[in-house]
Amino acid sequence: MSSNPTPFQTLPPIQNSRLSKQIEFLLEADKLKNIERRTHVSDGSRHENSAEHSWHFALGLMLFAEHAKAENLDIFKIMQMAILHDLVEIDAGDTFVYDTKAQETRAAREQQAADRLFGLLPPDQEAAFRAIWDEFEAKETEEAKFAASIDRFAPVLENYVTSGKAWRAHGVAVNQVEKVVGTELENAPALGEYLKEILVSAKEKGFLK
Amino acid sequence: MSSNPTPFQTLPPIQNSRLSKQIEFLLEADKLKNIERRTHVSDGSRHENSAEHSWHFALGLMLFAEHAKAENLDIFKIMQMAILHDLVEIDAGDTFVYDTKAQETRAAREQQAADRLFGLLPPDQEAAFRAIWDEFEAKETEEAKFAASIDRFAPVLENYVTSGKAWRAHGVAVNQVEKVVGTELENAPALGEYLKEILVSAKEKGFLK
Repeated sequence: MSSNPTPFQTLPPIQNSRLSKQIEFLLEADKLKNIERRTHVSDGSRHENSAEHSWHFALGLMLFAEHAKAENLDIFKIMQMAILHDLVEIDAGDTFVYDTKAQETRAAREQQAADRLFGLLPPDQEAAFRAIWDEFEAKETEEAKFAASIDRFAPVLENYVTSGKAWRAHGVAVNQVEKVVGTELENAPALGEYLKEILVSAKEKGFLK
Repeated sequence: MSSNPTPFQTLPPIQNSRLSKQIEFLLEADKLKNIERRTHVSDGSRHENSAEHSWHFALGLMLFAEHAKAENLDIFKIMQMAILHDLVEIDAGDTFVYDTKAQETRAAREQQAADRLFGLLPPDQEAAFRAIWDEFEAKETEEAKFAASIDRFAPVLENYVTSGKAWRAHGVAVNQVEKVVGTELENAPALGEYLKEILVSAKEKGFLK
């Protein structure tokens, strides 16, 4: 049984085997541009994808680093978390944060994806990238906690300014956002304060149940 | 004359004026997701946009940092260059690197865009972000030179694996890619060596003139 070659397989052979692995990973990662999230871009014209969300997350880190509750965070490491955090969705798909059922199986699906994707890398880079992703997932270090807060914040804005497009499509309620986003934003108090006002207004306007 | 409110203007008022400026910037930056480049995503299904390209560029930095000709680069700063480098396209549009005529007016258009966009930020962040972008644009420091090489590399791969889709659409020739990309890749020799093989093969296959 023959299958179509991957984009990587159509490239001229790469003599340097380390570089070959790196380029295969870079092209495989390109698929993240086609992973659609529930959230819309802020003009509401289409769903956003996980690659552009990862960029927006990294930009948010540059903007909001000063709002972290913890001091002396390693922002460079958190930016690397932002760049890597969603790659597993290439295999596991995007799991909507408010979909409780899908969340139950998320971790297992994503661990398997991480094995395959980071496994494309040279061993030292596999270990380094995987450690960053594992740290993000475990949400135990201050860096990972702050990362989670920024990861969640921009999508709330995007939802609000599109009149709650994704929230309404999935019947999301205020208390769900409080639980999922509000908890994370305890690590970025100024953002957490503003979230409360957004939620009051979103409820009034019918963007959230 | 009234115009439609921007997404930012539809948000509940933000009492903290510093946070208000930061959030306005983050939402304005969201428009980068709708700036279309000539390059296609690697399955050829659509053009890529500048936000997802910026993410892919940042990932490339993590992968290829070891291939920099210069030593002791500040990779964190280069990642910030990657995140910020294309924001000016929100006003100035994406200028195809092989469009000589448009390149003549690019710098002036992008400087004006930088004034407006970074001008949305609190003054200290405006100065910090603008300094990073100015350094990238000037291509004088080793960080900016290596950034330029990685910025150019993934699009070459994307073009090749889509059978030269954007190259063919715009009649690009081997010597143009050599000049525009090959020169930058002198700062990442292993990538520069591989570029030569890509160009030979792309010419043979008719992906490039």
